[in-house]
Amino acid sequence: MTEFASADDRSLVDLLLTAAERALSDAERDASAVDSVHVGNMAAEAFNERSGLANALTGSLGLTGVTARRIENTSASGASAVQSAFEAVAGGHSACALAVGGEKMSSADTATATEIISRITHDREYEQGVTLPSFGGLAAAAYLDATDADRRDLAQVSVKNHANAFENDYAQFRKQIDVDDVLDSPAVAAPLRLYDCCPTSDGAAAVLFTAEPAADAVTVAACESATGTHAVADRTDPLEIESVRLAGEYAYDTAGFGPEAIDVACIHDAFSILEWLEMEELGLAPAGEAWRLTREGQTTLNGTLPVNPGGGLKARGHPLGATGVSQIVELVWQLRGDLPDERAVGEAEHGLAVNVAGFGNNAVCTLLEVDA
Amino acid sequence: MTEFASADDRSLVDLLLTAAERALSDAERDASAVDSVHVGNMAAEAFNERSGLANALTGSLGLTGVTARRIENTSASGASAVQSAFEAVAGGHSACALAVGGEKMSSADTATATEIISRITHDREYEQGVTLPSFGGLAAAAYLDATDADRRDLAQVSVKNHANAFENDYAQFRKQIDVDDVLDSPAVAAPLRLYDCCPTSDGAAAVLFTAEPAADAVTVAACESATGTHAVADRTDPLEIESVRLAGEYAYDTAGFGPEAIDVACIHDAFSILEWLEMEELGLAPAGEAWRLTREGQTTLNGTLPVNPGGGLKARGHPLGATGVSQIVELVWQLRGDLPDERAVGEAEHGLAVNVAGFGNNAVCTLLEVDA
Repeated sequence: MTEFASADDRSLVDLLLTAAERALSDAERDASAVDSVHVGNMAAEAFNERSGLANALTGSLGLTGVTARRIENTSASGASAVQSAFEAVAGGHSACALAVGGEKMSSADTATATEIISRITHDREYEQGVTLPSFGGLAAAAYLDATDADRRDLAQVSVKNHANAFENDYAQFRKQIDVDDVLDSPAVAAPLRLYDCCPTSDGAAAVLFTAEPAADAVTVAACESATGTHAVADRTDPLEIESVRLAGEYAYDTAGFGPEAIDVACIHDAFSILEWLEMEELGLAPAGEAWRLTREGQTTLNGTLPVNPGGGLKARGHPLGATGVSQIVELVWQLRGDLPDERAVGEAEHGLAVNVAGFGNNAVCTLLEVDA
Repeated sequence: MTEFASADDRSLVDLLLTAAERALSDAERDASAVDSVHVGNMAAEAFNERSGLANALTGSLGLTGVTARRIENTSASGASAVQSAFEAVAGGHSACALAVGGEKMSSADTATATEIISRITHDREYEQGVTLPSFGGLAAAAYLDATDADRRDLAQVSVKNHANAFENDYAQFRKQIDVDDVLDSPAVAAPLRLYDCCPTSDGAAAVLFTAEPAADAVTVAACESATGTHAVADRTDPLEIESVRLAGEYAYDTAGFGPEAIDVACIHDAFSILEWLEMEELGLAPAGEAWRLTREGQTTLNGTLPVNPGGGLKARGHPLGATGVSQIVELVWQLRGDLPDERAVGEAEHGLAVNVAGFGNNAVCTLLEVDA
């Protein structure tokens, strides 16, 4: 992956190319081995006045005669590109598939970016002025009301993710924060404050999928996705994220192991509250109890279930189309044991990533494993 | 499919929904049978300030718990969505996949539309001001120079496509034209004139893919894609469209039959000259000889090889993301023998569709067949 940044000098295609070249180099493959290219990107048309990213990247790699397509699933575009690449290989349509996700959000003015990101939501909710942060705020308030978690526990999610990013060379924010920093940061959507929310980011990440097992490769045990209701108002429980629950169920079913086997997880923490809600939907914590894992320090790098060891969306950054791919990169590094002690969760056989579109319109859950 | 129009009152999501409902109705399936949704669209972010189309459509269909993604491959987004849906079913990842392509271009002002469509091209060529119509003009001039075709033969491509659209209830232009109308139309990019060029359009089309053969269903013999060089200047021959040639070769190889078996073809005639160039790349005409088929009337509805029986991009219209799907709809209608005499090519067992991105950056070739 590229380093994630708040503004990167490179063009979006250059970011994608850098990530692709790094993945090829890591896998010790030449670009000519690739027979399909799956680009994850949310909104280059709006952010970068650019179309045809998959063909531009494929051209930059010097490849002709291959399959190339761009996949968009809003903030889960990266994981949907991963799923497209995985399915192409698993289904026998590609021998070597390159998934590359990227976004360059700094090119867009704030009004354009806000408008496009807000247009992910259902028309009915968009017209009422409900934005993604406000959904986050409503969910956080409901959760704090329904459980014994307190506001400081929620802030601790961001504190933990910043601590993880502090040692991550690829993270956008390499800055330790404490609970008071979160509580003193500007209000965004009550009770959420700035440090509960992911930033806008530039960056790209890439993963190579092959049918033939390679030395030192990680195995995809499952890559499954599920839609939820488009309108959040159509959910019977405001704390429910059906897409995440179903994607997780499908993935565990395909993989043949369940949440109890997971050693490390990358969770879509676009807002701090989402880390808890998604952990509960995925069975990584009992319903209404994820906050206890945070309070007890179980989700820290050296805890019983490290969550977002690279810093998550909050602190590694959230270049929309890159995020879902960067989660896979992080898990591969952790499962292979590539990372130095201050970055490593330690021995891990099974990893989980979940990438979420909108406020739960769609989710992709990927399970990775290595031999013990 | 929906009727294609120059401006449709409905929103893009409504167009997609109408096409999806018509495909489900034709297939006598309920939406609940669908387990994956593949939306082809080029630029809703720019044309419609809209993101997350696949989730919006899936929500409108009342579906949760399914896979949904949007596929973008510029002007071949529709066929790439078809390929994604086909591969999902063929690879065992989906039992019933819905491919829906659509675009609503009339929402964008001309400057925005021109900018985004021009940004399909390689940066180097974009910066020189070379647009897609100018590539079409350069190719047309080179072809007319290299062969014995004359300008009136080229105009006849549009005349034939308008004649086919005249009887097509779904076509944007239901107007007969003659060669002089083409030659008298406003200049666009010499020697091409307005009536050599596809219009901007609104519309959507949908196809359902199932693993289990259904009564009256058409079989996908192959759906293959290939990239070409991104920069047109990198091609050794300005008349070469490597992506189309390779996509065709891959498809014939997979299907086990070749161009001689094709009874009807839908060719990506964004500019009249492309109908000839692509026919030659696909082996439907000898190199440098496609113009003879036009002159001899072989590509008319009742000719030996009917091409673009629905009117093609020129006259049926070209709502970018819809086009590749609408080609499949047209072939299905022809192969099943659904159409009245004035629309039908007659007995046909094998159909070919080619949908092209940019000026040949990428092409998708689909071969369909029915039992004789």
